[in-house]
Amino acid sequence: MKVLVTGGAGFIGSHLCDSLLTEGHIITVVDNLILGKKENIIHLIGRGDFYFIQEDLLQFVTLKKIFNEGQFDMVFHLAANSDIQKGSNNPEVDYNLTFNTTFNVLQCMREYKVKKLFFASSSAIFGETSAQLSEDYGPLQPISNYGAGKLASEAFISSFSYTNNIQTWITRFPNIVGERFTHGVIYDFINNLKKEPDVLTVLGNGEQNKPYLYVKDLIEGILFVCKHAKDRFNVYNLGSDSRTKVKEIAKMVIEEMMLAAEIIYTGGDRGWVGDVPEFKYDLTKIETLGWQAKYNSNDSVRLAIQKALGK
Amino acid sequence: MKVLVTGGAGFIGSHLCDSLLTEGHIITVVDNLILGKKENIIHLIGRGDFYFIQEDLLQFVTLKKIFNEGQFDMVFHLAANSDIQKGSNNPEVDYNLTFNTTFNVLQCMREYKVKKLFFASSSAIFGETSAQLSEDYGPLQPISNYGAGKLASEAFISSFSYTNNIQTWITRFPNIVGERFTHGVIYDFINNLKKEPDVLTVLGNGEQNKPYLYVKDLIEGILFVCKHAKDRFNVYNLGSDSRTKVKEIAKMVIEEMMLAAEIIYTGGDRGWVGDVPEFKYDLTKIETLGWQAKYNSNDSVRLAIQKALGK
Repeated sequence: MKVLVTGGAGFIGSHLCDSLLTEGHIITVVDNLILGKKENIIHLIGRGDFYFIQEDLLQFVTLKKIFNEGQFDMVFHLAANSDIQKGSNNPEVDYNLTFNTTFNVLQCMREYKVKKLFFASSSAIFGETSAQLSEDYGPLQPISNYGAGKLASEAFISSFSYTNNIQTWITRFPNIVGERFTHGVIYDFINNLKKEPDVLTVLGNGEQNKPYLYVKDLIEGILFVCKHAKDRFNVYNLGSDSRTKVKEIAKMVIEEMMLAAEIIYTGGDRGWVGDVPEFKYDLTKIETLGWQAKYNSNDSVRLAIQKALGK
Repeated sequence: MKVLVTGGAGFIGSHLCDSLLTEGHIITVVDNLILGKKENIIHLIGRGDFYFIQEDLLQFVTLKKIFNEGQFDMVFHLAANSDIQKGSNNPEVDYNLTFNTTFNVLQCMREYKVKKLFFASSSAIFGETSAQLSEDYGPLQPISNYGAGKLASEAFISSFSYTNNIQTWITRFPNIVGERFTHGVIYDFINNLKKEPDVLTVLGNGEQNKPYLYVKDLIEGILFVCKHAKDRFNVYNLGSDSRTKVKEIAKMVIEEMMLAAEIIYTGGDRGWVGDVPEFKYDLTKIETLGWQAKYNSNDSVRLAIQKALGK
């Protein structure tokens, strides 16, 4: 297939490109390189089946040109803000980077009759709840603008899919970790300990408890869902049954860096306004389809730390 | 309270203004008069407690000025596209009029620290399902851009409410009928029969079956919810338990107009792409709060026909 990957130079997008090329697809990446990095895809540039365009999806006229010339069979739409904290301070970030990018992609798909879409959604659409989250869970009340931007995207994807007969696969990610990550708790802990090896300050009380998934597991899960889910509109929670507490991550990072740093907690039940301190997925739907993550949450975290340290 | 009513010159908004003034509030209406009409509020203009500003909510700089000068205690945000069919043909309609108006209002509320919000949502967020729709129903998969625009609005209202501590009341309307309506099945049937009294063409097979609510019942319900629901974030389905089929509406209109028109059905289970042919609400939540509609669905339809005919 001729495939467009938006955000294809980013943390997750670049791993997806690696796998899509292995499967024999011809890829065009559009990335503005604000969060994405050229070094993530530098090993692909020059291949005859890989095209990179540095452009912003908010530039609608240029985007239409790209669709017109690309004649894509499918779009993998991953471009978005990925830093929840940043969007909480400025709602325009997720309004533009997470939602308006989606709307522009949908408008182009409608105009150029692209009939297959994958969308990278998030557990953040569910808001804060102690319930085990199945795909049918309601009400959906996001507490971050990031979650709102993803839910607003899902809303228009649903109506466009229906009215334009676009076959759609949405997977909702938990926390993703691994090579090429650009932010997040492991990233912060490692960088902070490099600067100050004796003390590690942890936002909140360390009890935040979430599922972490290794990025290569995620990519496998995405491609499995796109291959095996056959409805017009397919929505799957994607993750691991197990979870890891932030205080356990802190200990693992210190251990893997072979330090003896003291851990200081800032207190409170969450890292920042909009942070969901706990969630757990009901993964029955994706397991019934036939997929399960290789690594549990703790192993994913451990592996990501080791990869980040070049082990 | 000092209250901003967006879309206050519209079908529903103007009835809301009437009731809010009776309750002693000071009202500013912002309406671009594209769907709204000055005649709907002409009886209020000149009152010392009523201000009308003809402006488009998409004019963000002007909107900020209005918020700066208005010092509002609460916003009733009703401005939106209200014609589902129109938005199905052009996604920009609901993207702009239904969603971006909401985002602009939220940005102004955040900047000018307005801490109370009412939002007019819709059954269209639920998409097409035979389930009885409670407030916790999921998944939310709208099949019209109108429903998508309302769900996208709810998403950002949820995150803004949480991060800026805005007390919020959302009610999800069924089909609303009564004086001052601007479109919809009754409106169309009457106008078509005025032009051609012998034949009434009905889109679909006439079996579309939905709850209709009389506009003055709706306004009472809205104000009841805002007064009695005390959470930070309050969401209520608002409607009537009963439903009316389109073919029954056709008969009632012909009867009330004292005609003998033949009814012709175009066929198919729905009026147009994006039309949800059937839905029913679970109204336990609002009934537990203590509210019930005065008129059932058939009586609401009959009353609306009579009012439209000047009876």
